[in-house]
Amino acid sequence: MSPRSSDVVARRTRDAIVEQALLVASVDGFDGLTIGGLAGDLGLSKAGVVGPFGSKQELQLAAFKRGIEQFVELVWEPVATLPAGLPRLKGICEQWIRYHERRTLPGGCLVTTASVEFDARDGALRDAVASAQGRWLTTLAADAEVAVRAGELPADTDPRELALLINGLAMSLNQSLLLFDDVDAPDRARRAVARILG
Amino acid sequence: MSPRSSDVVARRTRDAIVEQALLVASVDGFDGLTIGGLAGDLGLSKAGVVGPFGSKQELQLAAFKRGIEQFVELVWEPVATLPAGLPRLKGICEQWIRYHERRTLPGGCLVTTASVEFDARDGALRDAVASAQGRWLTTLAADAEVAVRAGELPADTDPRELALLINGLAMSLNQSLLLFDDVDAPDRARRAVARILG
Repeated sequence: MSPRSSDVVARRTRDAIVEQALLVASVDGFDGLTIGGLAGDLGLSKAGVVGPFGSKQELQLAAFKRGIEQFVELVWEPVATLPAGLPRLKGICEQWIRYHERRTLPGGCLVTTASVEFDARDGALRDAVASAQGRWLTTLAADAEVAVRAGELPADTDPRELALLINGLAMSLNQSLLLFDDVDAPDRARRAVARILG
Repeated sequence: MSPRSSDVVARRTRDAIVEQALLVASVDGFDGLTIGGLAGDLGLSKAGVVGPFGSKQELQLAAFKRGIEQFVELVWEPVATLPAGLPRLKGICEQWIRYHERRTLPGGCLVTTASVEFDARDGALRDAVASAQGRWLTTLAADAEVAVRAGELPADTDPRELALLINGLAMSLNQSLLLFDDVDAPDRARRAVARILG
């Protein structure tokens, strides 16, 4: 095997480990990830699982980052080229609802999972969660601010208040789907978006 | 020691274990509870920790139920005697915001924590979380429905949509406090409540 094709194999193995870690973390949490469990799932040795990352924490971080990439691909990218302001904000909300409706991850929203696990503890995972969630709230608030300036939302609208509310609606929807399997919740969330954004 | 006073001691020991388990679960999750950890925290033997409950799962359930009791005491009881409908719904929102603002539990909302841990898994904990959260959403929707019938909210308001939105706002507030230590978030949540409920 040439060095080049072995690089391809190594990359594919790493990707497979990250994808499986993402699925497991979604259900059992990042603390629920075990090297032995992943090795069993993937038919690899424990050394083969941890090797590409160097440590369990780096593997946890890689899985979290993959989950964020997937979220950006599914929620942000389809609407990224819409006009900034209310059109894009509505587009984000619809994509976000679909992300949950189609049960993208078996354990639901990864940021909520990681946030609950790490928000009261220090460390690299907490920093990664805070950074990703902070960027997302800023993205929501930025489009809300454009919408207010353009007169698409009432002039007294606080963009960060709106970001808090929309973020919460997604969290609540995620909970209703996972805890109650409430198939009416996505349409209820759509009506709530229409109530908030007009 | 008479049997009676030994009962009092047993009850107090049990209560102390439950309170400590609640604090630990709030930060580390219910899966993060260990009998050895609690024994060390409380200066008890492992048998002394698990004895009053019979199993770790029963101890986890007792801690969860204590957290729910505390939530009901702090959020529901102060407003329980307000008129049903919009006055009580607004009262619930304010008490709920205060519950988070004063950081009642070090790891924040227990239902969110337990929900994230157990929503994708079967078992007694999941059932307890779904039951408690289901009752709470029903309570919110019931006051919303009274408010709609009384003309306190627009006639086309869906009570369960409002419950989804208010529940999400509390989850988002909890996240902003824990993840970003955002001390402006409670007032932002108050303004969002005013936006939603008028």
